[in-house]
Amino acid sequence: VQDTYIGSYLLERLVQLGVKYIFGVPGDFNLGFLDLVEDHPHLEWVGNCNELNAAYAADGYARVKERSLGVVITTFGVGELSAMNGIAGAFSEMVPVLHIVGVPSTAQQSAKPMLHHTLGDGRYDAYEKAAQQFTIAQADLFDVQTAASEIDRVITSCIVKARPAYLTLPTDIAYKRISSDRLKTPLSSLLPVNESAAEAHVIEEIERLVKAADDSVVVLVDACAIRHDVRQEVDELIKKTGFPVFAAPMGKTAVSEQYERYGGIYVGTISRPAVREKIESAKLILSIGALKSDFNTGNFTYSIPTAQTIELHSDHTKIQFAVYHDIGMKQLLPKLSDKLKSLQPRSSKIEVTPFKAIEPKDSSDVISHTWLWPRVSKFLRPKDVVVAETGTSSFGVLDVPFPDTAVFVSQILWGSIGWTVGSTLGAALAAKELQMNRTILFIGDGSIQLTVQELSAMLRSGLTPIIFLLNNSGYTIERFLHGKTRKYNDIANWKWTQLLDVLGGGEVPSRSYTVHNRAEMDKLLDDEEFAKAGQMQLVEIMMDKFDAPPALMAQAELSGKTNAYV
Amino acid sequence: VQDTYIGSYLLERLVQLGVKYIFGVPGDFNLGFLDLVEDHPHLEWVGNCNELNAAYAADGYARVKERSLGVVITTFGVGELSAMNGIAGAFSEMVPVLHIVGVPSTAQQSAKPMLHHTLGDGRYDAYEKAAQQFTIAQADLFDVQTAASEIDRVITSCIVKARPAYLTLPTDIAYKRISSDRLKTPLSSLLPVNESAAEAHVIEEIERLVKAADDSVVVLVDACAIRHDVRQEVDELIKKTGFPVFAAPMGKTAVSEQYERYGGIYVGTISRPAVREKIESAKLILSIGALKSDFNTGNFTYSIPTAQTIELHSDHTKIQFAVYHDIGMKQLLPKLSDKLKSLQPRSSKIEVTPFKAIEPKDSSDVISHTWLWPRVSKFLRPKDVVVAETGTSSFGVLDVPFPDTAVFVSQILWGSIGWTVGSTLGAALAAKELQMNRTILFIGDGSIQLTVQELSAMLRSGLTPIIFLLNNSGYTIERFLHGKTRKYNDIANWKWTQLLDVLGGGEVPSRSYTVHNRAEMDKLLDDEEFAKAGQMQLVEIMMDKFDAPPALMAQAELSGKTNAYV
Ligand SMILES: Cc1ncc(C[n+]2csc(CCOP(=O)(O)OP(=O)(O)O)c2C)c(N)n1
Ligand SMILES: Cc1ncc(C[n+]2csc(CCOP(=O)(O)OP(=O)(O)O)c2C)c(N)n1
Ligand SMILES: [Mg+2]
Ligand SMILES: [Mg+2]
Repeated sequence: VQDTYIGSYLLERLVQLGVKYIFGVPGDFNLGFLDLVEDHPHLEWVGNCNELNAAYAADGYARVKERSLGVVITTFGVGELSAMNGIAGAFSEMVPVLHIVGVPSTAQQSAKPMLHHTLGDGRYDAYEKAAQQFTIAQADLFDVQTAASEIDRVITSCIVKARPAYLTLPTDIAYKRISSDRLKTPLSSLLPVNESAAEAHVIEEIERLVKAADDSVVVLVDACAIRHDVRQEVDELIKKTGFPVFAAPMGKTAVSEQYERYGGIYVGTISRPAVREKIESAKLILSIGALKSDFNTGNFTYSIPTAQTIELHSDHTKIQFAVYHDIGMKQLLPKLSDKLKSLQPRSSKIEVTPFKAIEPKDSSDVISHTWLWPRVSKFLRPKDVVVAETGTSSFGVLDVPFPDTAVFVSQILWGSIGWTVGSTLGAALAAKELQMNRTILFIGDGSIQLTVQELSAMLRSGLTPIIFLLNNSGYTIERFLHGKTRKYNDIANWKWTQLLDVLGGGEVPSRSYTVHNRAEMDKLLDDEEFAKAGQMQLVEIMMDKFDAPPALMAQAELSGKTNAYV
Repeated sequence: VQDTYIGSYLLERLVQLGVKYIFGVPGDFNLGFLDLVEDHPHLEWVGNCNELNAAYAADGYARVKERSLGVVITTFGVGELSAMNGIAGAFSEMVPVLHIVGVPSTAQQSAKPMLHHTLGDGRYDAYEKAAQQFTIAQADLFDVQTAASEIDRVITSCIVKARPAYLTLPTDIAYKRISSDRLKTPLSSLLPVNESAAEAHVIEEIERLVKAADDSVVVLVDACAIRHDVRQEVDELIKKTGFPVFAAPMGKTAVSEQYERYGGIYVGTISRPAVREKIESAKLILSIGALKSDFNTGNFTYSIPTAQTIELHSDHTKIQFAVYHDIGMKQLLPKLSDKLKSLQPRSSKIEVTPFKAIEPKDSSDVISHTWLWPRVSKFLRPKDVVVAETGTSSFGVLDVPFPDTAVFVSQILWGSIGWTVGSTLGAALAAKELQMNRTILFIGDGSIQLTVQELSAMLRSGLTPIIFLLNNSGYTIERFLHGKTRKYNDIANWKWTQLLDVLGGGEVPSRSYTVHNRAEMDKLLDDEEFAKAGQMQLVEIMMDKFDAPPALMAQAELSGKTNAYV
C-alpha cells in the first residue's frame, strides 16, 4: 500500500537516526516539503537567517550529536549555493550533513523554462555539478519507484563516510505516495566488516611491534576518532593497556583531558616541550584517526618516523609502511584492547606529565592571552560544550585543559571564519537534547561579523550560550601572518554589548558585558549568576591588537615562510 | 624589461577599465596581493564583512557603473565558495564581475599538502571545477610567461559577455616580475563586428516588416539593453522613429520613464490594461535585449506571436522565426535608427497612455501597498539610484514611475534575497563616483536578515543611502505562494531602529525612524532634512503581514499553479 509521501518517508528516516532539529531557509521550491517538517510530531524546524549559517548549524549539531546527523534544507540555486562553503567545510572536516534542496517540479525539470533562480541558459544541472565536488553521495529524487532506495543509499553514505550528501526534492515528488515498508528495516550505519584473516594478521603485527617497543608506546588520538565514533573504544584501549595518551588539536577531548595518563596536545614543534619530548622519543606511536593538516601538525613538523608508527583509520590500517585496506578501527580497537591488556602492568609505569594550565607570572592587569586561557580553564565545567573560532581563540583554547566530559568543537582544517556562530546554534540545540551543560563560544571581533545574524536564531530558540567576544580591533591572526598594520586587517568596531538586545527585538532576556581588565573578568567569571548561564550572554573582552597565544605566533612564523608572498 | 609585478599588471588593467573600488575579505592566500591594492593610488579596498556580501557589492557596483566591471577578491576555498551564490547571480543576470581568488603558492599547488582551507583529500582543483559552472572564463595564473595574456583574455570575456570570470592568483605569482608592455594597448571591450552583407540584409528585412506593419509598431526594452550597453542607441532609435516604447521589469529605466512616448511596464497578463492592450494589439514588436524569465514576463503570459516579433540581442538578431547569428544590436541599432527615421511623422502619431502612479482611493491611514508606491513616486528625484529587494518591494517598485535619469537596480531573474544589502553598498559607491543623487533601498524584514552586517560597510565608507525597511512580520511574498500562516514564514523581529547605531559603533552619524501610518510617512518624506540624505538613514515601515502589491498577488496565483506542491 502506498501509505506515505516520499517527503514523509525521508523525514521518517531522519527521525530514526535521532534527528530532532532541522535547519534551513524556506523558498518557494521547498515550502510544500516544509509543511511536512512543521507538522511532524518529532521534528522541529529551525528557521535560520541565511543558508550559510544554516549549513554551519547543521554541522555543529552533527558534531555534538555524535552518531546522528545534521540536516539542512535550502531552495534551488540561490539557497543551495549560499550554503556551499558550509557543506564543503563539513566535507573537509568529515561531518555527516544531509543537504536537501527543494527544486522545481519534475515537469519543469524536463521543460527547463527560464524560472527565477535559474542561470537563464537552461542549465538545470549546474548546481548539482558544483555540489558533487563537496558531497560524498547525491540523488535526484525524480523517480517515484526508486525514491525510497535512493534516499536510503544517500543517507547511509552520509553516515558511514561521515561526509555531507546531497538530495534534490522536486516540489511534486515530495507529495507522491509510496509504501512505507522499507522503514521497518532501520538504516544501521552499516559499517563494512573487517575480513577476519587480514584483521587477525594486523592484530598480530601490532602486538609484535608493541612488544618490541618495550615500555615505550604512546597513543595519539586525532579528529577521526571523534568523527568515526570510537571514543569509547579508545577509552577502553587506554584504560586496559595503560599507554600514555595525547591528542592532536583536532582530537582534543576525544579522550578526557582529566584522565591521569593524558599528557596534552601534540602539535609538532609547537607543542609544550614535555609533550614533544615524550612523543618524539617513544619507540612506537599508536595513532588513532590521524588527520595531518598544517594547523593540526604545527605546520607539518611532526617528528615521528613512519617506521615507528601504527595508524588506525576508519577504513584502513597502516603499520609502518604497509597499508591494510578495509581494516577499520571501529572493529579492530576492541580486539586490540583485549590483546594488549596484558601489557598494562608495564605500560602504566611510563610516566606522563599531566596537562595543566600554565599560570602567567606577570602582575599586569591587562587581559593578555597568557592570562586569559588559564583563567578560562578554571571557568569550564563538566559537560560544557566549548566552541572556538579560527583566530586567536582557536589557538588559545587548545592550551586550556578541559574538565572531564566537556566537549571541544572547532574547525581546524577548514578554518572558515564565522562558522562558529552557526555551529554554536546547532551545538547548543544538540547539547540541550543530550542534557549537556553550558554552550560556550570564543570568537574574534572579525569572525563574528561574517555570520552575526544567527545570534538571533539562538535567542529565538530560547538558547542560552555564553559568547566571549575577543575585541582586539581586527584580524589579529592575520596581522601575525602578513600586513601587521595594514588597513585591510582593520574592521569596523560595533557596539557589541547592544547586539543581543537588538537581535532579540528587546523581547528575549539577555545580558551583555564589557571587561577591560583581569579584575573585571575575574569578577564576572566568579559570579554564579553569570556562570549558570540562565539567559543568553555576551562578554566583550578588550584585548591588545598585537597580542596572540604563543602557539599562534609560532605557527604564523612557520606558515609565513611557506606562503612566500614576495 | 620586467618592470611590473603580475599582481600590479592585473590591477592596472582594472584601473584602465575604470575600476576604483575593489571588494572582498582578506585571507592568508591573498594578503600579499592586497598590499598592492592598498598601495595603489587609484584603487580603494572596501573590506566587506563576508564574501557573499562582497560579491553582491561587486555586482551592484558593476550594475551602476555601466561599461566598467565589479571586482571581488577572496581567499582559497572558504572565501571563494562563500561568494559562489553572488557570482552565480551575476552570471544569471549578466553582470561583469571579476572574481580573483588568492590561492596557495605554485609550489604548494604541485605538492598538494593538506593545508587549511583544503578538502583534506588533495583535490586542489575542486573549487575551480565548481566555479566553472558559474563563470564565463577562468584562468589559473601559474605560468609567468602567459600570465599577462591570460589576464587579458579573462577580463575581455568578462566585459564582452557581461558575465563573471574567475582568476586564481598563487601567493608567489602575484610578485613575479613581467613586462608592462601590453598595458600600452588598452583592452577595448572588443565587440565583434557584424558581417556587413548579413547586417544589411537584416536591416532590409526589418525595414520591410516595419513598413508592412503600417503605423502599429512598438518597442519593448529589456534587461540586456542595460547589460549590453545600448541605452544611448535605444534612446536614439525611439527619438528618431517616434515608436511608442515600453519596458519589461528588468528593462525598467533603460529608457526614461518620463519620456512622453513611454507607456510603462509590460509583464504579460499582469500588466496594466492599457499597456497590455497596446502591446498585444501591435502588428510588430521590436524587442530589444529580451530576457524572458518567469517573473519578467508575468509567468510566461506574453501574448506576442513570434511572427510579429523582431528581437535584437547582443550577439544575434531574430526576425520572426529566423535567427541571424553574430548580428549584434550595439552596431545594428544606429543603422536601424537611420533607416527608420523617415517613418517618424507617422509613428509619432501612435497614441501612448503615459505611465503615471495610480493614487489609491481609500481614506484609510494604514500604509498599504496601494498607498505606499504612489507615495514613493513623489519622493524620487532625478539621478536617484533605487534598489529593490525580491519580495513585496521588487513588485511594488515596478509600479512607480521613476524620474528621468533615475536608475532602477533589482535582481528579478536570480532573486536571491539579501542581495540588495551588498549591492546597495556597491551601487552607492558607483553612484558617488558618477555623481548621481541618492541611493535608496527598499527591502523586507526577512531579506535584510540574510546580509544585514553589510550596513556596517556602508557606514564605514561614509555612504548615506536611505533604507526603507518594510516590516510586515516575515516572508510575506512566500505567504502568498504557500503556507500563508505557517511558522516557517515567520521571522524574529529586531529592534530595527537601533541597528545603524550598533553597526556604526556609535561613531558614525545616522538616523532611524519607525513610521506607523500615512501621516507619519508623509511627514518624514516631506522633511527636506531627511530627503537630502546627508547621513545614513533607516526607515522602518510598519505594514500588514498579508498585504502585497496587486502584481505580486497575480504572479503568486500563476506560479502557485506551476509549482503544484501536492
Ligand atoms: C570565510 C573566511 N574568510 C576569510 C578567512 C581568512 N581569515 C582567517 S582568520 C581571519 C581573521 C579573524 O579575525 P578575528 O575573528 O578578529 O580573530 P582574532 O583577531 O582573534 O585573530 C581571516 C579574515 C577565513 N579563514 N574564512
Ligand atoms: C538566498 C535566498 N533564500 C531564500 C529565498 C526564498 N525567498 C524568496 S522571497 C523570501 C521572503 C522575503 O521576505 P521579505 O524580505 O520580508 O519580503 P516581503 O515580506 O516584503 O515579501 C524568501 C525566503 C530566496 N529567494 N533567496
Ligand atoms: Mg580580532
Ligand atoms: Mg517581510
